[in-house]
Amino acid sequence: MRKLVVVALLFSVVNVIAQQEDEKQIKKIYDTSLTAPQAYEWLNYLSNQIGGRLSGSVQAQEAVEYTKRQLDSLGLDRVWLQPVMVPKWVRGTPEYAYFETKPGHTTNVPICALGGSVATKEGGLKANIIEVQGIEELEKLGRAKIEGKIVFYNRPMNPTLISTFSSYGGCVDQRYSGAAEAGKYGAAGVIVRSMNLRLDDYPHTGSMSYGDTPVENRIPAAAISTNSAELLSTTLKLNPNVKFYFNQNCKQYDDVKSYNVIGEITGNEFPNEIMVVGGHLDSWDLGDGSHDDGAGCVQSMDVLRLFKATGYQPKRTLRVVLFMNEENGLRGGNKYAEVAKNKKETHVFALESDAGGFSPRGFSFDCSDTNFEKISSWKPLFEPYLIHMFVRGGSGADVGPLKDENIVLSGLRPDSQRYFDHHHAENDTFEHVNQRELQLGAATMASLVYLVDKYGFDQPIKIKG
Amino acid sequence: MRKLVVVALLFSVVNVIAQQEDEKQIKKIYDTSLTAPQAYEWLNYLSNQIGGRLSGSVQAQEAVEYTKRQLDSLGLDRVWLQPVMVPKWVRGTPEYAYFETKPGHTTNVPICALGGSVATKEGGLKANIIEVQGIEELEKLGRAKIEGKIVFYNRPMNPTLISTFSSYGGCVDQRYSGAAEAGKYGAAGVIVRSMNLRLDDYPHTGSMSYGDTPVENRIPAAAISTNSAELLSTTLKLNPNVKFYFNQNCKQYDDVKSYNVIGEITGNEFPNEIMVVGGHLDSWDLGDGSHDDGAGCVQSMDVLRLFKATGYQPKRTLRVVLFMNEENGLRGGNKYAEVAKNKKETHVFALESDAGGFSPRGFSFDCSDTNFEKISSWKPLFEPYLIHMFVRGGSGADVGPLKDENIVLSGLRPDSQRYFDHHHAENDTFEHVNQRELQLGAATMASLVYLVDKYGFDQPIKIKG
Repeated sequence: MRKLVVVALLFSVVNVIAQQEDEKQIKKIYDTSLTAPQAYEWLNYLSNQIGGRLSGSVQAQEAVEYTKRQLDSLGLDRVWLQPVMVPKWVRGTPEYAYFETKPGHTTNVPICALGGSVATKEGGLKANIIEVQGIEELEKLGRAKIEGKIVFYNRPMNPTLISTFSSYGGCVDQRYSGAAEAGKYGAAGVIVRSMNLRLDDYPHTGSMSYGDTPVENRIPAAAISTNSAELLSTTLKLNPNVKFYFNQNCKQYDDVKSYNVIGEITGNEFPNEIMVVGGHLDSWDLGDGSHDDGAGCVQSMDVLRLFKATGYQPKRTLRVVLFMNEENGLRGGNKYAEVAKNKKETHVFALESDAGGFSPRGFSFDCSDTNFEKISSWKPLFEPYLIHMFVRGGSGADVGPLKDENIVLSGLRPDSQRYFDHHHAENDTFEHVNQRELQLGAATMASLVYLVDKYGFDQPIKIKG
Repeated sequence: MRKLVVVALLFSVVNVIAQQEDEKQIKKIYDTSLTAPQAYEWLNYLSNQIGGRLSGSVQAQEAVEYTKRQLDSLGLDRVWLQPVMVPKWVRGTPEYAYFETKPGHTTNVPICALGGSVATKEGGLKANIIEVQGIEELEKLGRAKIEGKIVFYNRPMNPTLISTFSSYGGCVDQRYSGAAEAGKYGAAGVIVRSMNLRLDDYPHTGSMSYGDTPVENRIPAAAISTNSAELLSTTLKLNPNVKFYFNQNCKQYDDVKSYNVIGEITGNEFPNEIMVVGGHLDSWDLGDGSHDDGAGCVQSMDVLRLFKATGYQPKRTLRVVLFMNEENGLRGGNKYAEVAKNKKETHVFALESDAGGFSPRGFSFDCSDTNFEKISSWKPLFEPYLIHMFVRGGSGADVGPLKDENIVLSGLRPDSQRYFDHHHAENDTFEHVNQRELQLGAATMASLVYLVDKYGFDQPIKIKG
């Protein structure tokens, strides 16, 4: 009995000491991130010296070279480029569009081609336009009402959902599959309301797919700003015979060679257990890709920098991966997982930051109940930093292909209210990222990685809640 | 025994029904705020049609008239203006400043007079400048080293504090009392590093006090941008003989008459129990006062609008108060409390929004342990809206004078990371407020008021946590 008491006492003392050690290390991480920041400077270069980094572009290659140089300078154990073939889609000259209420009465509207769209025919496309609230409306309308027309998808994002990513998820089918579906009914083209909760004048691009539509049947697709979507909708109610004109000369080229940029600190106890932090290095071409996903890249790089700067040597191997081609192909994420599988690497954890550089609120986790319970026991360590959300859910597109029954996948969850004001648009630019918010995100990620490294995902631990 | 079981069962059923009712009403409040927003439109007018609203200015009077008209239009039971005499301080022509490393070698720096400062003498003030890290350094330096010089307070906000309001609290003595204290050692003037965590070119004004310094001994004080504070500090290290010149012709006039703007929905059960929501209508003059505190005013107005729009009639009297003169005098807050006391009004609750229009994170409460416990039991109702912080702490300057042993005082706590980028500066403008964030704040306030109204602060209630 006495022995039991002693053991219990010892156990509790060990726990208290461990907790104090954790609090101290996490404080060190946050303090370093806030007093000697680095991520923001990297982002400044990526955004303002390089700019938008569409897969296959010169800027994407510059970003590969720049980030590799920066990782080289951190004194990591290994830095390398992982080759991957990526699609190369080019926007061409700026798109042009108007609607016409009667001959000679036109109103210009801001549009942008969706990523992957075909061009309009030489000279542009002019046709009657018909508004729908979603793909499911096409069947009701039938070919008779759609053939030869431009289909205008105008279902807005649902403003009542608190997570704007949920609103996005409930809308993005119009952008992704709208052209393939409308094409089946003989539509001549597609105009999609921008995935934006705000009413403004920026069209938002994003990926689309023609599915198995034969090349000769593919119809051009573009996004229209939310303000102009509202105007067009109102005009159509007054005059259903409105014609819409748009001209875009975007083009898909053959795949080109690009790279995932990878760096690692090799674990000194369990070097074969790999923890990944990452974001995607490519971006759309309209803005400079600061929030999507320059922020996630520099935060991920900063996790390793913070480990170095705070003098913490991980037991497990900590790897940063800057994935290429998340936006229009996910080739980088797929390649990384494929190589990992071929090499029989063991990934225990992968954390992606791809939801903007805003104030961090927490994480989502895709993992077993047991591991989620363990992770949840760490919550009190994060509360002083106003990190409250530890929820089940998706992680990130790039780390998704690593999924198996053992790995814990996670996504940083920043405040999402402003994200879709900027997402995939001309105004996703550096000045909309706040340095403290960005650095708090980096520190939050580094703190979670520290705990994963220290406690792993095998033995249950208990932290005072 | 059976009777007891029945009672317990009944009690638990009642609780479940009450909780469902609360969830439903709170959802209705958020949905209405997000789908049929109003606060943002009001703010647009206040910011872009009226602008900065310094106490005693024409704009402050316009804001009184505009907000009264808007409250009149809401169909409240009473709307009125409460007269209050306020200070009138006027900036005059734009300030001008430079530092001089040797005759003819000058560098211009952006400054702004602190609110309440005296002017420099005709033609400006030029003197040697000495840097200190705070008021406590003055004594060590002594009169010999200070007399005739300009004192440059350059202690920055502490970046490691997660609440930027704590950083502000640890710095603002330099701005508020710096001139009075330096004056005691014969300083000729004071330059204060702007209360801003970001390095940029905006000087941030704010209130200061000469304490009991006789009028003839008052020295001029101005804020300098953080970038220029850094530059000046570096220059001083290389050359301690730098001279600083500044010219400002601000002036204090006699007090003028102004108003608190008040509207109420009279309670239908306990009309004598008053709940206040409010913000301050005055602002500094440099920007348009969107975050400080246009946001808090329109959110508070929106609480009553949301009660009306969701068809909820409060049992207690719900009053919105737009306080005048928080920034440089607190006359409105003091007057409101004075009148309430004279009229023997019972205030049970007062909630202020004066921390910016950013994503709401929670509330701080200044109240008894029992009431804090009751309030904390409501937390689960807020979690779906990502409201996690229910903490003890200060409420708001304007509602502070209402404090007694019975009232519960509270402050809305939005995300604070960006607040001091804009606070009291030229860039506190409308485009830095996001509509969803603003409306989420209004809904969060309205939801808390709904619970206070429904449950009051007497009998303990229990909500499933």
